Amino acid sequence: MSETKAVRQTYALTHTAAFAMVEAAVSKAQEIGVRLNVAVADAGGNLLAFLRMDGAPLLSGKIAQDKAYTAAAFGKATGDWYAFIKDDPALLHGIVHTDRLVIFGGGLPIYCGDHLLGGIGCSGGSAEEDTLCAAAGLAALESHLHGQ
Amino acid sequence: MSETKAVRQTYALTHTAAFAMVEAAVSKAQEIGVRLNVAVADAGGNLLAFLRMDGAPLLSGKIAQDKAYTAAAFGKATGDWYAFIKDDPALLHGIVHTDRLVIFGGGLPIYCGDHLLGGIGCSGGSAEEDTLCAAAGLAALESHLHGQ
Amino acid sequence: MSETKAVRQTYALTHTAAFAMVEAAVSKAQEIGVRLNVAVADAGGNLLAFLRMDGAPLLSGKIAQDKAYTAAAFGKATGDWYAFIKDDPALLHGIVHTDRLVIFGGGLPIYCGDHLLGGIGCSGGSAEEDTLCAAAGLAALESHLHGQ
Amino acid sequence: MSETKAVRQTYALTHTAAFAMVEAAVSKAQEIGVRLNVAVADAGGNLLAFLRMDGAPLLSGKIAQDKAYTAAAFGKATGDWYAFIKDDPALLHGIVHTDRLVIFGGGLPIYCGDHLLGGIGCSGGSAEEDTLCAAAGLAALESHLHGQ
Repeated sequence: MSETKAVRQTYALTHTAAFAMVEAAVSKAQEIGVRLNVAVADAGGNLLAFLRMDGAPLLSGKIAQDKAYTAAAFGKATGDWYAFIKDDPALLHGIVHTDRLVIFGGGLPIYCGDHLLGGIGCSGGSAEEDTLCAAAGLAALESHLHGQ
Repeated sequence: MSETKAVRQTYALTHTAAFAMVEAAVSKAQEIGVRLNVAVADAGGNLLAFLRMDGAPLLSGKIAQDKAYTAAAFGKATGDWYAFIKDDPALLHGIVHTDRLVIFGGGLPIYCGDHLLGGIGCSGGSAEEDTLCAAAGLAALESHLHGQ
Repeated sequence: MSETKAVRQTYALTHTAAFAMVEAAVSKAQEIGVRLNVAVADAGGNLLAFLRMDGAPLLSGKIAQDKAYTAAAFGKATGDWYAFIKDDPALLHGIVHTDRLVIFGGGLPIYCGDHLLGGIGCSGGSAEEDTLCAAAGLAALESHLHGQ
Repeated sequence: MSETKAVRQTYALTHTAAFAMVEAAVSKAQEIGVRLNVAVADAGGNLLAFLRMDGAPLLSGKIAQDKAYTAAAFGKATGDWYAFIKDDPALLHGIVHTDRLVIFGGGLPIYCGDHLLGGIGCSGGSAEEDTLCAAAGLAALESHLHGQ
């Protein structure tokens, strides 16, 4: 350990920020007329905040959490996975069985500069609607970070 | 079915109420200086709202959800379970293995009159602290129901 | 979110440090003549480093990982849990069923000042031997942090 | 049992060798600029050694362990599976559901002569990068065996 550092500095989302991201995603969902489950995971993939909107599909509650997990645990949008694996049949038939991996849209990673802080996942609408609402959650964080 | 009704009217928590209950529990936790995980489940035992406060133990995230589930799924406070089973050795050694059952304090059922609407669970402090914060969540709902 | 921060600064263990902690625990185990499984988890409770020593019990591999998880996910030594719950029968009969919770010695939290960075867990010897080796892992990190 | 032996001699990886294989795979990963999870499993498919590199995707931690398991538990490279099953629809749609089976590259079996000693699995880069780093782990073992 002599030549390298034992720890590296990073950042963690506050619960206030996680809550505000959920609220912003829910507001966007109301604006476009969809009923979603919204989840925010931290950098360790663990659930930080969650809300299921009135009338949102129950089945999508775990999907939203898994989208947040996938985005946090790989650092990219869940909607990018299919393009990444579609031409590699071994991945297409194999990696989809990975526990909690979601390969369709609605999960976005949360970054603060180069630091991966977690992920936000929305589920209950189309992949485009889910992604739009997740992006609204990210935008709420961005505007706050720049206002700090 | 001739003499009985096919359906009965009931009530469901709105996501606005669930969110407000979480906020009230978090405010109480901040007031008494503890860091909790707070969860609200609906009448089906499914997660409606969740928040892990900054610095709250990660391990208690699932316990909070399981307390909310237990309270919703049996209609009584999790803290009442031990008195209920302690003198019946078969229950004491057996029922504790029931998946998601929590037999210590911190989970309270959510009623609207006679209607069981779900449960709220707090975890991260002592059973007394957790229960106090869960009760603050219930109180927020009560004051809102009476104000409607 | 206007009055509070969206992110808070923290630290993460490097893989070099995690590896060095495992090596130090293994060296201590060899010195005292026990064969252990050694695991280091990050702040999210996720496995960072692991080694099962020659002849160490296979059954203890998951226990070591769960001790590291428990220490990371609650921020205290696994050996402190029993004293904490022994006089509260509801906890004693109830909380022991929490998934991955280990209530006997051998897991220690990893701190850098006030920041909880993870946990180290050893399993295969007595609780005292396991804890001694986990402490050797912590000491290796401490000496490195002070040398940085 | 009259005509056959009751036991047969075999070999087991030492933890020193497993650790050295992980280190060699990590060195190769650093050389080619990827951030991986690296796992070594023994002949029983059980985890012997593991390391998640700084910045390596969390999601790939279990995949690396499953690649090591698959290679140990079947005795061939994980990257050979797809060619083996692609023209047999029952296998292609069925065997991929086998728990812990990985059918894409990055896991290699560890042999000593004819003896299957375990597997090494890398995950976090492309299948080619993962396989290259797993092979570096094997090469470290080979050079050590020939130097003995």
